[in-house]
Amino acid sequence: MSAAEGSEPLAVLAGGGELPLALAGSVVASGRAIHIVGLKGEIAPGVERFPHTLIELGEIGAMLAAIKASGARELVIIGSLKRPDIKALRFDFGAVWNLPTILSLMTGGDDTLLTNVVRFFEGKGLTVRGAHEVAPDLAAPQGPLGSVAAGADARADIARGFAVVEALGPYDVGQAVVVTRGHVIAVEAAEGTDGMLERAASLRQWGRARSGKRGGVLVKRPKPGQELRVDMPVIGPRTVELAAEAGLAGIAIEAGHVLVASRSEVIARADAAKLFVVGIAPSAGAA
Amino acid sequence: MSAAEGSEPLAVLAGGGELPLALAGSVVASGRAIHIVGLKGEIAPGVERFPHTLIELGEIGAMLAAIKASGARELVIIGSLKRPDIKALRFDFGAVWNLPTILSLMTGGDDTLLTNVVRFFEGKGLTVRGAHEVAPDLAAPQGPLGSVAAGADARADIARGFAVVEALGPYDVGQAVVVTRGHVIAVEAAEGTDGMLERAASLRQWGRARSGKRGGVLVKRPKPGQELRVDMPVIGPRTVELAAEAGLAGIAIEAGHVLVASRSEVIARADAAKLFVVGIAPSAGAA
Repeated sequence: MSAAEGSEPLAVLAGGGELPLALAGSVVASGRAIHIVGLKGEIAPGVERFPHTLIELGEIGAMLAAIKASGARELVIIGSLKRPDIKALRFDFGAVWNLPTILSLMTGGDDTLLTNVVRFFEGKGLTVRGAHEVAPDLAAPQGPLGSVAAGADARADIARGFAVVEALGPYDVGQAVVVTRGHVIAVEAAEGTDGMLERAASLRQWGRARSGKRGGVLVKRPKPGQELRVDMPVIGPRTVELAAEAGLAGIAIEAGHVLVASRSEVIARADAAKLFVVGIAPSAGAA
Repeated sequence: MSAAEGSEPLAVLAGGGELPLALAGSVVASGRAIHIVGLKGEIAPGVERFPHTLIELGEIGAMLAAIKASGARELVIIGSLKRPDIKALRFDFGAVWNLPTILSLMTGGDDTLLTNVVRFFEGKGLTVRGAHEVAPDLAAPQGPLGSVAAGADARADIARGFAVVEALGPYDVGQAVVVTRGHVIAVEAAEGTDGMLERAASLRQWGRARSGKRGGVLVKRPKPGQELRVDMPVIGPRTVELAAEAGLAGIAIEAGHVLVASRSEVIARADAAKLFVVGIAPSAGAA
């Protein structure tokens, strides 16, 4: 960590879920000041424990002003965002001013959009940092997270899952797949990881056809070239719950590049369900 | 068509749906005799119009005997098959005799299974032919099938869809994807094309976010290396219906390598829904 990072506050543009406040807590614990710019209707209760400003999604002017007033030159963007209803968005003057840029953000795949978001803030003189850079303790470590280890038979499924996400990288598709005994039974696209796991549960006969045993692995990792500064893959307690309902044996995530929300609860639920959760070292070729 | 093909009967191992009888009609119309070996509980009514034998799925001995008695040396395997409940299967002596082979069929992905099925019959001295070889009129022609043409904006989505299936080839995943304005919104794996389209319908806001216009394409094509002799991709009237419900603009399939069940109804429904259905020439690199 450079001296500048230690002494300057960090701005946190925060959506919903538990991660923004976990990140804020982690950064503050490391001795660095923060200022949260939270989206109304998204940010979780508890934001009041930290210096913060609340804005609407369309209030780009207010957002930039709050970041500037905090003295931060570095920004982290974190948390969930419901896909906004464009028609219901209310823009402020800052948004109108930046309208050409904002409109150009909306074209292309998710990766393009997110790369453009980074570019937008960089054009304002800010450096966008990844959550895993400012709060490395939020990312998956290498090795098992709970007390269950991945069996030998899971390893081939894990390798296949990592390879499939790798192969789909150029097409900006999903970052997660379910693999059971060599069969790729579900590939995530626009439905998201939870939606894919619910489908895997309905396809459960694939995983348990020949025995009552759990089988199969959820693999989640960044797509090659994924913009980790604004779009880290995340797992959380709900992921564990859905993986268990789908009859899977475990979850494999890329160490350092997948965030684990509510880690202690993830571990408790995985142990209770006898599911493994394992961080896999990124391969040489991975993003 | 060789002289042997014209004079010798063709055995048709037939599952459910409309395709086995359509194929039988097409082959008979071409002047070649056939003998249908139909699976009880699967084969559609109408089989009695053709020379036929009915068997249970486990009656491998009876199946091989019926093929032999017909004098056929060539076999087509066609029609849908519900994933069998292994425990409920009743095997005959022919099955027991072939048990080691049959058990080895059950391992590996779908592609492995199907390649092994071909090998099994070839080991019995039979030649397994693809439906598109013996009844080319069942496969999609090149160009539009109905009266609606694919717009210029659909072409990029079609190309992307073909590329994604190509990229997934080595992993024996799906043969269909839905692409909307450059976004890959759904990838088929074990849920099948219908399941994927139902999901696409629930993700419809992706396809129609900014207007009420239809948008997006279902792309269906064989995986690279797919065993077309036992596993041709198929579309039918239900595919058109679900694509319309998903708000898609059309369907693109690989000409010559995707079967169209109930073609006249496919065309009627596509025209009524103003959906395009287009056959795309296989690229040089395609299987």
